[in-house]
Amino acid sequence: MSGHLAVIGLGPGDAGYVTPQAQAALAAADALYGYGPYLDRVPVRDGQSRHASDNREEGARAAAALAHAAAGAGVALVSGGDPGVFAMAAAVCEELAAGPPDWRSLDVTIVPGVTAMLAVAARVGAPLGHDFCALSLSDNLKPWDLVERRLDAAAGAGFVIALYNPISRARPWQLGRAFELLRSLLPPSTPVVFGRAVGRADEAVTVTTLALADPNAADMSTLLIVGSHQTHVIARPGRPPLVYTSRSAQGVNA
Amino acid sequence: MSGHLAVIGLGPGDAGYVTPQAQAALAAADALYGYGPYLDRVPVRDGQSRHASDNREEGARAAAALAHAAAGAGVALVSGGDPGVFAMAAAVCEELAAGPPDWRSLDVTIVPGVTAMLAVAARVGAPLGHDFCALSLSDNLKPWDLVERRLDAAAGAGFVIALYNPISRARPWQLGRAFELLRSLLPPSTPVVFGRAVGRADEAVTVTTLALADPNAADMSTLLIVGSHQTHVIARPGRPPLVYTSRSAQGVNA
Repeated sequence: MSGHLAVIGLGPGDAGYVTPQAQAALAAADALYGYGPYLDRVPVRDGQSRHASDNREEGARAAAALAHAAAGAGVALVSGGDPGVFAMAAAVCEELAAGPPDWRSLDVTIVPGVTAMLAVAARVGAPLGHDFCALSLSDNLKPWDLVERRLDAAAGAGFVIALYNPISRARPWQLGRAFELLRSLLPPSTPVVFGRAVGRADEAVTVTTLALADPNAADMSTLLIVGSHQTHVIARPGRPPLVYTSRSAQGVNA
Repeated sequence: MSGHLAVIGLGPGDAGYVTPQAQAALAAADALYGYGPYLDRVPVRDGQSRHASDNREEGARAAAALAHAAAGAGVALVSGGDPGVFAMAAAVCEELAAGPPDWRSLDVTIVPGVTAMLAVAARVGAPLGHDFCALSLSDNLKPWDLVERRLDAAAGAGFVIALYNPISRARPWQLGRAFELLRSLLPPSTPVVFGRAVGRADEAVTVTTLALADPNAADMSTLLIVGSHQTHVIARPGRPPLVYTSRSAQGVNA
């Protein structure tokens, strides 16, 4: 089988995040697949076909890209951030596992990228500087009860928590419920970072506390970071505060 | 204060991972600080001074870089992977918080990079495709008991677990003890990925199971990923297996 599928992370938005590896893989492709707004970030090249699809069609998009590659093409499937974190690489593996046996012979490569939590963390300091977890608040594919058990386990054990997919029109109450649960587990002063659209023109990053965190301040493009007992804020004159999680957890009970 | 400090992530090893943002920040610096082997990855430029330091001198290196920037220089402090994940950005924040008050007026930027777990995950498929945590096995700065409680919480709640700093000459038994604990919590067939030196000439990535995982197969340059109940392996004829964590957790009890 001569085709090839590259699943490529574009990073959080600005071209300055696209690695040379990703640039080369994009330039080499015969066909590009992806969610429309992600495809729009890729420079147009003559002779390359483009196949945009809707945000919620991840399985169908992955299957279409696999089928095109199996037919002999060099296919690039683009993903925002890192394709391996709540993104297209898992969808490709799921479709490959369920698809025709010959898809298993395909040459598939994954090109990693800067995922949203790393970009948001970098904007404010180092809130992911010690043990942390990444959790999707979407209950489209898992029961809400499991989300709550994971929040409880993570906060109880002292992990900093990065929240992906915090809110959408179809999931309006989940983030508020998550804040309620976290307020029962962590001090009111726990730092919370709202990082919206980092690297894009409409970027907005704010630092607040768990007591004051407002779920309505988040949207589909927001990544949240909820601190731990080890997370501190440094006030700075004339500059935004720095948020960091100490490398030392001596004396931490959580 | 006219100086500037950029804390820059170089990614996992190969130049193909260094983002355009990071390249530009490196080129613009008057002085470069970092652990020697990381500095060696940065192209030499006339007029730029280089200040290499040992692996274990993170606090002192961060303070020296801050002091140099406070004296008016454009300073770049390099980090492997992403500076915000078990790396230099937290050390810079700690030193800034403890240092002279005028350091708080400094212009400090963090340039994110591809952290090891993303690069290792990309090599094998999408093991971080659903909820996961990142945990350092080093007990230099936290009690071992806390590491065990975090492993227990993470595995018990169904998080995939990325293990940083699994082993060193000074910490020879911790990874074996972690495997013992995880074997009491997860099925023997749980996929385990050993990712060594991804993107470097001596790269070695292997997929095994929790039952067979051998702590002696890891070294200081290894990043491990331990799967969850949602993590699957796809055997492929003539190709290495693909490891992925399903996006769906319907029916998962963990």
